[in-house]
Amino acid sequence: MSGWVKIAGLGPGDPDLVTPQVTAALAEATDVVGYIPYVARVGARPGLRLHPSDNRVELVRARHALEMAAEGRRVVIVSSGDPGVFAMAAAVYEAVEAGGAVWTDIPIDVLPGITAMLAAAARAGAPLGHDFCAINLSDNLKPWALIEKRLRLAVEGDFAMAFYNPRSKSRPEGFARALDLLKEACGDDRPVIFARAVSTGDESIRVVPLTQTQPDMADMRTVVIVGASNTRVITRADAPVVYTPRSVPE
Amino acid sequence: MSGWVKIAGLGPGDPDLVTPQVTAALAEATDVVGYIPYVARVGARPGLRLHPSDNRVELVRARHALEMAAEGRRVVIVSSGDPGVFAMAAAVYEAVEAGGAVWTDIPIDVLPGITAMLAAAARAGAPLGHDFCAINLSDNLKPWALIEKRLRLAVEGDFAMAFYNPRSKSRPEGFARALDLLKEACGDDRPVIFARAVSTGDESIRVVPLTQTQPDMADMRTVVIVGASNTRVITRADAPVVYTPRSVPE
Repeated sequence: MSGWVKIAGLGPGDPDLVTPQVTAALAEATDVVGYIPYVARVGARPGLRLHPSDNRVELVRARHALEMAAEGRRVVIVSSGDPGVFAMAAAVYEAVEAGGAVWTDIPIDVLPGITAMLAAAARAGAPLGHDFCAINLSDNLKPWALIEKRLRLAVEGDFAMAFYNPRSKSRPEGFARALDLLKEACGDDRPVIFARAVSTGDESIRVVPLTQTQPDMADMRTVVIVGASNTRVITRADAPVVYTPRSVPE
Repeated sequence: MSGWVKIAGLGPGDPDLVTPQVTAALAEATDVVGYIPYVARVGARPGLRLHPSDNRVELVRARHALEMAAEGRRVVIVSSGDPGVFAMAAAVYEAVEAGGAVWTDIPIDVLPGITAMLAAAARAGAPLGHDFCAINLSDNLKPWALIEKRLRLAVEGDFAMAFYNPRSKSRPEGFARALDLLKEACGDDRPVIFARAVSTGDESIRVVPLTQTQPDMADMRTVVIVGASNTRVITRADAPVVYTPRSVPE
């Protein structure tokens, strides 16, 4: 039996947003590894071993998956959203490169999923309908100065912006600084979307003008989307819709 | 019977990348509208009317869908990839806003899909594993100067970049200019991925060092991904893997 690793995106939460490709991979797997709440989304069945692990042990988890595959097991690493966006795919390739020739021949596939910003955008309208940036606001793995630099350049380029990991319990002050920077750099009242737990029973979507945003509007289950300067809000029967037009006049 | 509009993402091409949510919407639809090759991906069945239309008539198509929904029909507008990324969702909301109160009460949902850059990234490794920008290189709807400005700022911020619509038959010179700009602004030999027709029978993935890129490596079916300065290439048994590490040292 020859083993493999598939790094699969479970989407934002709703089982109806899991691709058939990911469902098929889970059906063939002998082992599933991932962060505890993501592994909990995989149904138990005879012959399937579940290996939930804590947050912030991505490289340990990646090596464990590769070791099992080298022994002939069929291992699915589950990520929320898309595995290529601030998730496990990069961690697995970091482990592969650090391992040198050891894991060169293990088949590895990345199975894309619905990433949080696109699920959130869909629920809010079409705020990412024109050029945009995706920025991880956590400074666990990069200096805060680089985050601020990227925010300023994104505003200067008039990109819409999507923020992952906006605010953690352990370091809540970063998001407050990011909002202060945006209020100063944007100089307008463009809409900001706080999309929490999209597609789950806990979903909430809030649209707030930039000047009225507050740091505690986000937590680690929130994706934040900031419009470009021409992003519009339409009042509709059920909820406001936010969209960024496809065109920018000369 | 009350009508509705659902703007659905069909993903990059492989039916195994279509979400169950989109499949269910198509099963409930009375009408499907969209660009000819996307409507061709929807199976015909009794009672389902297909309305394929040409490229560049997005607003006409959006109004047609809204008019049919106002008459009580259940209309799915199909996009390739994700409808919120350079696709039909923004066009529908432009039509809604221009229509004033006429369409205020028609239920509209956006159903996310696997967008081209994430499908391409998955096939290549994890090139968008850290902060990145998505830029539409077509200057049909925005000035070329804005595209150049955004490219320069994205390089300055050391974002990875994904380009949609890199090169059309009618205006192939833009992509040549973009590559020249990148070669000058990046000043290194970071990897560039040309991902064509991802997940279809025509798929090809090419990894080319920036200095060796040529304009004719892309066409309208290609998504181009340019790494950040720290993006890595690993030689593996089957094909090279490109990934952007999750961390940036101080």
